[in-house]
This record gives sequence, structure tokens and C-alpha cells, in this order.
Amino acid sequence: MTTQYKLTTLTQGLDVTIKGNADCLIHGVAPIQEAQAGQIAFLMNPLYRKFLSKTQASAIILSEEYAGECSAAIVATPNPYYVYAKIAAYFDDHPTSVPGIHPSVVMGKDCRIPASVSVGASCVIGDGVVIGERVVIGPGCVIGEFVTIDDDTHLDANVTLYHRVQIGKRVNIASGVVIGSDGFGLAKHQGKWHKVPQLGTVIIGDDVDVGSNTSIDRGAIGDTRIERGVKLDNLIQVGHNVQIGENTAIAGCVGIAGSAVIGKNCMIGGGTGVGGHISIADNVMVTGMTAVSKTIREPGIYSSGVGGLMSNKEWRKNSARLHRLEQLTQRVKALESLLVDLKEREK
Amino acid sequence: MTTQYKLTTLTQGLDVTIKGNADCLIHGVAPIQEAQAGQIAFLMNPLYRKFLSKTQASAIILSEEYAGECSAAIVATPNPYYVYAKIAAYFDDHPTSVPGIHPSVVMGKDCRIPASVSVGASCVIGDGVVIGERVVIGPGCVIGEFVTIDDDTHLDANVTLYHRVQIGKRVNIASGVVIGSDGFGLAKHQGKWHKVPQLGTVIIGDDVDVGSNTSIDRGAIGDTRIERGVKLDNLIQVGHNVQIGENTAIAGCVGIAGSAVIGKNCMIGGGTGVGGHISIADNVMVTGMTAVSKTIREPGIYSSGVGGLMSNKEWRKNSARLHRLEQLTQRVKALESLLVDLKEREK
Amino acid sequence: MTTQYKLTTLTQGLDVTIKGNADCLIHGVAPIQEAQAGQIAFLMNPLYRKFLSKTQASAIILSEEYAGECSAAIVATPNPYYVYAKIAAYFDDHPTSVPGIHPSVVMGKDCRIPASVSVGASCVIGDGVVIGERVVIGPGCVIGEFVTIDDDTHLDANVTLYHRVQIGKRVNIASGVVIGSDGFGLAKHQGKWHKVPQLGTVIIGDDVDVGSNTSIDRGAIGDTRIERGVKLDNLIQVGHNVQIGENTAIAGCVGIAGSAVIGKNCMIGGGTGVGGHISIADNVMVTGMTAVSKTIREPGIYSSGVGGLMSNKEWRKNSARLHRLEQLTQRVKALESLLVDLKEREK
Repeated sequence: MTTQYKLTTLTQGLDVTIKGNADCLIHGVAPIQEAQAGQIAFLMNPLYRKFLSKTQASAIILSEEYAGECSAAIVATPNPYYVYAKIAAYFDDHPTSVPGIHPSVVMGKDCRIPASVSVGASCVIGDGVVIGERVVIGPGCVIGEFVTIDDDTHLDANVTLYHRVQIGKRVNIASGVVIGSDGFGLAKHQGKWHKVPQLGTVIIGDDVDVGSNTSIDRGAIGDTRIERGVKLDNLIQVGHNVQIGENTAIAGCVGIAGSAVIGKNCMIGGGTGVGGHISIADNVMVTGMTAVSKTIREPGIYSSGVGGLMSNKEWRKNSARLHRLEQLTQRVKALESLLVDLKEREK
Repeated sequence: MTTQYKLTTLTQGLDVTIKGNADCLIHGVAPIQEAQAGQIAFLMNPLYRKFLSKTQASAIILSEEYAGECSAAIVATPNPYYVYAKIAAYFDDHPTSVPGIHPSVVMGKDCRIPASVSVGASCVIGDGVVIGERVVIGPGCVIGEFVTIDDDTHLDANVTLYHRVQIGKRVNIASGVVIGSDGFGLAKHQGKWHKVPQLGTVIIGDDVDVGSNTSIDRGAIGDTRIERGVKLDNLIQVGHNVQIGENTAIAGCVGIAGSAVIGKNCMIGGGTGVGGHISIADNVMVTGMTAVSKTIREPGIYSSGVGGLMSNKEWRKNSARLHRLEQLTQRVKALESLLVDLKEREK
Repeated sequence: MTTQYKLTTLTQGLDVTIKGNADCLIHGVAPIQEAQAGQIAFLMNPLYRKFLSKTQASAIILSEEYAGECSAAIVATPNPYYVYAKIAAYFDDHPTSVPGIHPSVVMGKDCRIPASVSVGASCVIGDGVVIGERVVIGPGCVIGEFVTIDDDTHLDANVTLYHRVQIGKRVNIASGVVIGSDGFGLAKHQGKWHKVPQLGTVIIGDDVDVGSNTSIDRGAIGDTRIERGVKLDNLIQVGHNVQIGENTAIAGCVGIAGSAVIGKNCMIGGGTGVGGHISIADNVMVTGMTAVSKTIREPGIYSSGVGGLMSNKEWRKNSARLHRLEQLTQRVKALESLLVDLKEREK
């Protein structure tokens, strides 16, 4: 049986204005162009405005200005995506976990794990681990010695936390994530690399999300720190002693080399690389696949790698021209001398 | 004891022409330059043609036109690499799995798992999981609630499938793969990021391969779809609601942002990034490390990031010249005015 | 209780000169700008020289030439970072493992595992595995059939080794690493991809480090080889049949396509891509995020992707100019003709 909610129930506590049938029953969400009766949709991207007049949705979340273009019930708000997020949570069918430690779990000594915590099958918990209330640890996780995990944090299946890692409240960590592996610290001596002991740990603040298969290395001296509210996507590399400021969001496949410091409220596009020991100021946006090869001191939008997408033929031409730029510069210089010459003679 | 096969056995059912000793015994495969008596090699890349006259191999798979250059037995075919793939399968020593569920497996309620299925040690299977005939699940896998896996699919060790993920027939999933993790959906409200519930799932078609440590996120609304015959290499990020068309092959370290749509029969080079909400037409080839920052509507080969590999010294020069391009343009403009001026005066 | 060491103890066996209080007691390490009494720091980067006169550290590791600028005890050496690495090892609190096989381990047939080996909880060991003395295998690892692991090697938690992989002595493998997954070998036939059996394995030499979530594919014919002393960071993709020469260090997020050959003593910057079948000579340095699209025959420093970091506005301008380069070249050509013309007439 699908659960249905009155529109007024779904919007309770949200700062919205309802127009039309506030009592209509909603059993799910759908994209505006696909929504049927009983579903609620949202409009944020103006490209989808054209579907407003045709949609079969029973209710639409949108900005006030579009309210007249639609016969469905209206949930008007200046932030339709946020309101959608809150309403969609009613229809979230992510499995819930029953408190308790599965009998297959291998538990270390001297751990503190409240009765409200759920630890899934096949987990291995090291000595001295301290876990907060209502934490959920998925199956197959390995939690190292003296790790602390604060209240209401969720680890999905097959997460690895190394010894002494500290995780805040309400943190979500997806499967395959590794936190606290040794940083890439190497000293060369007589032609060979020698491992530099990685003595710090990783400290993850409250309300942080970490996407699947992301790696976060422990600090070499001092700690790697991910501040409150940071959101990390999948397959991100965070080197040792990196610091990431509050509410910064980093998209997939980004690599952040050791000791880089990223400010607050930044947005880093996917595939970007941030060099070692580089700083990025607060409120900086970096577009995707940028090489951040030097410190960014001012807020703004940054990019690298001139020459956007083009056909490979065009790309070959442009690359060749680039290599002939020096020659072109010399030709212009020659022309300038000639003209100076000509004008001299004219006098 | 090594198993030996007659050449005629190895080529049974393949559309090839044999010349020379069709009854020679073959016990293994080797590269043409290393092959010894009793081994079979193939020639595809013309660079290796020079080894034809010297090879010790007992048989060679090659295109008709080279058949005369070699004293070994010949397996002539227009597609030597495909024929090699079929013959090499006889020498594949990948371990086979005995049907049955290892006693250490933690099994959910209401699962349907036929007797022909093999589930390795330490796996955790959620409630309501439905598995097809002859499926092999390696050790340490975690299969979420209500996942379906169709016939003859193989999961290697330590794979994670989230709840409700659907996997087709004859799919190969390598170790460390995560399928169905939450997409990177965030709504900003009052300066903080709020998680947008990810309500869809991931649907993987028949004959798909997924390489090790690749992440595929579940859809936000609606599903992430990987169509039949798609081949994904290692460490690839597939964002929420991405669609990948039939028989498209994607090399390692590619990142595909949310809601991107990739057509059929595409080839995407390693390290490439595809931006969010971008479409790529059918039959498109993208070279490695390209930033696909806009929609591609026509088949063809595409690239970005002008300036191929060069010495760092040359790179610095070129980068500097690029920054002086505006200045050069102004100098050419000045020359043009001067010349117009000179010619005017000449009249 | 924190352990304290005399400075003379910490420096035993190291080729250093001590000045000042050689008997001072040290209980830990710290960055020079944060170090307190009882701690030892090091100076390598000249940027930190300014902290020398103010540091509270009880001892400083540095190059002879700076010895006079500091009131702490001095450990003078031409290689402060290496000496630091050796001293820091005294303060390493990485958990140590007790020899023995955890009762939850699922062990295959015909394995050889000495009494000095530690195998963590929930590991699954395949048939015929041979392990050397003092090897440590963390919890949740899956070791495939006929794998060999030589003396003193450490696998952290949740590592996956496929069948027949060979690991040398003193190798460190971090969590989430997958070694021996099938390479991306595909033959197209009648419009569909067919898997090419991957018959080789992976051979890892002595003293190799592999960072978390890195993938190393097995060879197609012949083996993938990582030579002695190679250091791999996190989230690196190593394709089938890749060869990496001794003491080469590769930073995070690098992708190396199939059959690439990388020489000895190379340094490959983070996010770089190396194309298939490409060779890189010994002693080559490649800067971060470079596309190595052709063979490098000479030692030196290499880069690609002209145009360093800039504001997005500047980036857009530069990209536009680049696309107008052809036009600019034509304008210069026109000017040259005109001038030739003018000079002719002058005669």
C-alpha cells in the first residue's frame, strides 16, 4: 500500500503559500513532465516551464511568479528545490535499521555503544571505539581502534575508518569510503623512498556527507579536517593535512593534494585538481576539471585549460596554431619594423 | 597438467580459415614476440608484423593478407582480436564457483535464491532479494533490500549494491564497485546545504561490465540507467539520473555528472568529464581527458584542452604567449590602421 | 602515559650532528610553528625559516646552515625530512597486530600461513594461498586463490586481491585497494563488445606502497608489473599489462591505460592520464593533470593543457581568442602582402 498525505501535511512547518486544493492527496513525487494525478512535482529550471500548463501533477512547487500558469494545486515559495527536498523526504523508502548489534559483529574491548545504535552484519569494531546515540553502521564496515562517531551519523555498507578517526553528528558516509588511510608522505634518501610516519588523524565535523569510494587520508603531523556542513561527492581524494571549510561542496573525482586549505562556502567542480600547500579563499567557485595550481586569494569564479569542447579536427588545428604563436609574434614584429622604416622614409 | 587442444577444437564454430597444421596441439596463448611451440598468438597491430617471420608460435590468428609471411599454422579471419578472445577463453583459469550459499552468509527474509547460485563467504543479503539462475556472488558482498540480479551475472568480492538496485543478465561487476549510493543532490537554504532525498534507483541492463571501484549513484527522481552492452572501466563516477546508451564503452577515471545522457555506441576516453544535464549523441567518440562542457549533437570525434604534451619549458612559453594574445591582436590592428593610412596617402 | 626519549636515542644510527642539549627528552613531533617544549620539529621548506627564532620546540632537525638561528637543540643533517621520518617512527601509534588467525576467518584449502602472521576478523582466504612471515592482513580482506604474499607485508582492512596475484616483501596496501581485477579488454564483433579473457596476473615487487581505493588490473596476456620501491597514492587506475619501473612515485587520481610502460625514478603528478601503449623514459617528471598522449623518450619535466589557473572571465576571453587565431594569422598574412606590394612600388 502506498501511503498518501494531504498537501497540507506535506507542507507543515514550511514557509509556503498554498493555492488551489490544499487537501489534495499526494502519494509520490515525479519530474514535472512525467507527473500523474496524485503526484507532486517542482519547477526550478525555467527550461521546464513549458510543461506547467500540461502537467497532470496534483500539485506543483514553484516560485510565486509562475503560479498562474497551471491548474494543479500550487505550493509557492522562493526556494522550490529546498521545499521539494523537505516534501520528498515523506516518500523516502531508504531502509530503516533496527537498533542492536548483529550477532556476527566482531567487537573490540572497551567500546561504548548505546542501545539505540544499529551495527550491521559482519562489521569489525576495534578496541576503545565510542559511538553516539542512534548511529547506524551498515554491514561489512571496519571501524579502527579508538574511533569516535557522534550522534545520528550513518555509515552505509563496507565503509573503512582507520584508528582514531573522529566523526561528528549527522554525518552520512557512503559505501566504499576510506577515512584515515596513511597520507602520501615520502622522503628520498640514497635514491629510495622512505615512508614518513603519518601521525595525525582525520576529524570530520557535523552534518558532513561523504560520497561513495572517496578516500580521506590522515594527517602527517596534525590532522586532516573537514569542517561542519561540507559535502563531498564520490571518488574524491583528500590528501593528508587538507583543511576544508564549512559548507563547501566538492563534486566527484576531485583530487586535493596534501596540506591544501580550502575556504568556506566554496564550490569545486568535478574532476578538478588542487595542488599541494595551495590555499583557496572563502566563497570561491572553481569550474570542473580545473588545475588549481596556485593560491586563490579573492572570491570569484576560476578556471584553467583554455579551449573548450570542439571537434578533434578543430582541436588539432588549434593546438598547431598555438605552437606557431611564437612565429606569428615574430612576423608581427617584422611588419612593425618595416612600417616604421617606411614611415621614416616618407618624411 | 596443462590442458592441450587441437587447433580445430579451438576454432570450432568460428568463421575462420585454417592453413597449415590444423591438428597441432595448443596449450596456451602468448604475445607474438614471446610465443613458443605449443602456443597460439594473434596479429592485429601492424607494428608487430615484423615478428611474423620469426615467431615460435605453433599457430597465429591474423588477417588473410599476412598469411604468407609465417611458417606457423594460420587461423585467417577479418577480426583476429575477436577470434583471439574466443580461443583465449579455453585457457581462462579464473576460479569457478560451486553452487551453494556459504554458511557464514547472513541472509535476509523472503529472498528467492535458486540452488544454482553461489554466494561467497561473509556476504550479507538484505530482505526480499531476488536472484536468477547461476548467479555468482563473491565473498564480502553486501546486497541491499529488494535488489534483483538476473541470470548468469557475476559479482566479484566486496561489491556493494544498495536497496532496490536492478541488475540484468550476464553482467560482470568487479570488486569495490558501489551501485545505488545516494546522488549528490543538495538544496541551499539559509546558507546551508540540505540533502535532497534520492528516491530512484539504478537499473543495469544485460551484458554490462562494471570495473573495479566504480561508483554508480541512484536516481533522485526516476532512475539511473545503464543500457544493455555498456562497458565501464575502473574508477568511474556515474552521477544520479545519468543514462548511458547501448554498447557504449567508457574508459577509466571518467566522471559523469548528474542527469547527463550519453548515446549508443559511444567511446569515451579515460579521464574525461561529462557535465551535468549534458547530452551526447549516438556514435560519438571523445578523446581522453576531455571536458565535455556542452551538448554534442552530431556523431564525430571530440576533444578539449588545446596544447598536447610538451616539455614544461615549452608549456610555460606557450601559456605566456596565450596570455599575450590580446596584446598581439591589438598590434595587428594598429598595423592595419597604419597601412590603410599609408595607402590613402599614396593615392 | 606518553613515552619520552632522549634526543640521543632518537638519533641513534642516523648520520647527524647534534648541537645543544643532546639529552633533552622528547615526547612527540609537531610542526615548527606549533611545537612546544618536549617536542621535536623539522625545517625543510625555507618559508618556515621565520619560525626558527620563535619556536618552543625542544629540538629542531635542520640543515647545518640554519643551525645558528635557533636556541633549541639542533639535529643537523643534509636531509632533514628523511631524518624526521626516522625519528617520527618512534611516536607512531598505528595499532600493532597480534599474530594469529581470527576465528571468524574463512580459510581455503592447502594454504601455507606461518604462525607469525596476523589475519583479521571476517577475512576470506582462497585455496592455495601462501603467506610469508610476519604478514598482517586487516579485517574484511578477501584473498583469492593461489595468491602469494611475501614477508612483512601489510594489508589494511577491506583489501581485495584476485586469484594468483603476487605481492613482494614489505609492501603496504591501504583499504579499498583492488588488485587483479580484469582489464578492460574488449573486441567488437557484429556491433557488440565481447570480453577478451584476462589471463595474466599482477606482480608487485618489494617495498611497494599502494594507496586507498586504488585499482590495479591483471594482465591480458602476460602480467601487470609494479617494480620494487614504487609508491602509488590513492584512487589510481593501473590498466592491464602496465609496467611501472623501480622507485617511481605516482600521486593520487592518476589513470594509466593498458600496456603503458613507465620508467624508473619517475614522478607523476596527481590527476595525470597516461595513454595506452605509451612509454615514459626513466627519470621523467610529469606535472599534475597532464595528458601524456605520446611517448616520452628523454628525461625532463613534461606538461600539457596550456593556460594555467585564471579567472573564469579571463578564461572565456582566452578561449575565444584562441578560436580567432586562424583569423589573426590571415590578417598578418594580408598585411605582409600589402607591405611587399608597397615596397615594390617604392622601388
